[in-house]
Amino acid sequence: MLISEIQRYYKDRSVLVTGGLGFIGSNLVISLAQAGARVMVVDSSVSGCGANPFNLYPVCGDVDVYPFDIGDQEVEGPLREADIIFNLAGEVSHIHSMLFPERDLRINTLAQLRFLQACRRAAPRRRIVYASTRQVYGVPQYLPVDEDHPVVPVDFNGVHECAAAHYHQLLTRLSLVDAIVLRFTNIYGPRMAIQLPCQGVLSVFLRKAVRGEPITIYGDGTQFRDPIHVSDACDALLRAGAIKNPELRTLNVGGRTPVTLSEIANELRAQRSLPSTEFLPFPAERAKIDIGNYCSDSSACEGALQWHPVMDLCKGLRETMRYYDEHATRYLPASHPCSCPLSHS
Amino acid sequence: MLISEIQRYYKDRSVLVTGGLGFIGSNLVISLAQAGARVMVVDSSVSGCGANPFNLYPVCGDVDVYPFDIGDQEVEGPLREADIIFNLAGEVSHIHSMLFPERDLRINTLAQLRFLQACRRAAPRRRIVYASTRQVYGVPQYLPVDEDHPVVPVDFNGVHECAAAHYHQLLTRLSLVDAIVLRFTNIYGPRMAIQLPCQGVLSVFLRKAVRGEPITIYGDGTQFRDPIHVSDACDALLRAGAIKNPELRTLNVGGRTPVTLSEIANELRAQRSLPSTEFLPFPAERAKIDIGNYCSDSSACEGALQWHPVMDLCKGLRETMRYYDEHATRYLPASHPCSCPLSHS
Repeated sequence: MLISEIQRYYKDRSVLVTGGLGFIGSNLVISLAQAGARVMVVDSSVSGCGANPFNLYPVCGDVDVYPFDIGDQEVEGPLREADIIFNLAGEVSHIHSMLFPERDLRINTLAQLRFLQACRRAAPRRRIVYASTRQVYGVPQYLPVDEDHPVVPVDFNGVHECAAAHYHQLLTRLSLVDAIVLRFTNIYGPRMAIQLPCQGVLSVFLRKAVRGEPITIYGDGTQFRDPIHVSDACDALLRAGAIKNPELRTLNVGGRTPVTLSEIANELRAQRSLPSTEFLPFPAERAKIDIGNYCSDSSACEGALQWHPVMDLCKGLRETMRYYDEHATRYLPASHPCSCPLSHS
Repeated sequence: MLISEIQRYYKDRSVLVTGGLGFIGSNLVISLAQAGARVMVVDSSVSGCGANPFNLYPVCGDVDVYPFDIGDQEVEGPLREADIIFNLAGEVSHIHSMLFPERDLRINTLAQLRFLQACRRAAPRRRIVYASTRQVYGVPQYLPVDEDHPVVPVDFNGVHECAAAHYHQLLTRLSLVDAIVLRFTNIYGPRMAIQLPCQGVLSVFLRKAVRGEPITIYGDGTQFRDPIHVSDACDALLRAGAIKNPELRTLNVGGRTPVTLSEIANELRAQRSLPSTEFLPFPAERAKIDIGNYCSDSSACEGALQWHPVMDLCKGLRETMRYYDEHATRYLPASHPCSCPLSHS
């Protein structure tokens, strides 16, 4: 489908987005609202998970925001109205999951189980697009990583995301829901919670760049990722929500091309005239859960959804920085040091 | 190692067995106690999970039984004394998990997470042998099923057992515990909870045979399994507990040879002069989670543990029946109808 067809598909449809106050969720909500969808957001603003009401400023008043936990029964109300469900609620921090594994189990597995049981009751057989993560694969045994790669999570977050993905797949095979699982690589772009210290390497890089501080890299900087701009991620989500009778139910969604952390840092440094990048040895607790090099084989997704990532990394970083320049105080208030909201919990 | 060497290995060692009042656990405890180990049992006798104090009658007074849930902090007391841990606690019923998925998550995942956290604190880097299940593989994509087979669970029990296995593997890679995961096929033998209706096909067959009732089979009876006698399962567990620096951490443990359900029923029918076997259409809720034919490729286990299943099926069934003939009232009290302990919860 062309982008214009996708947008027409969502016009006047009722769409529910869990985690719609967060990074990816809010970008998706804005796209949906702009396409003319009736958008309902379910987001309980769990501390540390990136919810930020300002994220929805461009569509303020155009969407209904329900401050429910996805595991609460009251979610059945908005679910009953939904034609399509985008399930993006969750905690993405690997470090948090290692510090507080039961919290991660509760947020990423138990709440998802309850949510899917609610979907069975209130929105049976409805399309659900679940945003999962390449983290379930763990340390790549080969590159690029396709959907047949063994699932060997290196942290609790990966274990719990894997269980939640299994729930979606299981209930789909039982014809109780109609889910597609997208396994995203590192996503970046506007509305990322760069104020949170444990949201991944790209978030840290962007925070440093916004502040004009030197970027720090653990290791020698040659490790690579395949970052994807949030607009491309949202395009994949929208296509997965619209496709009829998909054969493949689990799809990797990666960026256009692998790029080293040094290259990303260099690009930000050039754009922002930052001081020299600092290279540090891996802290022990991060080295244990580092996955080395990673890039996705997205060919199954490209074939199934007729999707291609289009955003150039340099341009994507420039547009992202422009967003944070404009709205810095909404993400990095001067009076608030950047600290982990869980560090005292 | 020879069986005699294995037995010598456990003499005077402190061994903790979770789920030690259950089917496999009690058989293992008896083997360990007879080998001269100091055995501690942790079992909270969760309804529907097969705990039966009579199972430990042969070693009554020789083992310490702690009525703790494995997720409770007090488990750290016995853990501190343990040289080796056999982690067999859990709910194995696929049907129960579909009826009560949150209960299954609590028993098979949350409690395991808490138990492993307790192991990190009270028994760091200690050998843990975790009894997992072939159920995690779901419907076989090829036969026999090896450890590289995709993990596509067909019920909540499989999802949750998969997550618990991931916990063991993850914490082992982090050098916090030293776990081996054994994925067992269908196990049968003395001390099986044949009074419970949802413990799998072999349990149902044995119950019917003990009662002299006709065996009923869902489907045409040509579907096959590779049953393993509990003595062979315990031999694999004991070897996994004793092996030094194992390279492989996940091993399939299957029976000697595939056999159809009709063949098993025929053997029991011949041994017990039972009425003709009845073939019934699959009930809808069971058809949805049926895996078709299954047999394990146990060659990795055979190589790593120098283990081979030795019990002949006919002999194994005969010995099993002899056990239940002798102790029928301990498993099938005449005054108690055979009912699901969860059906009213």
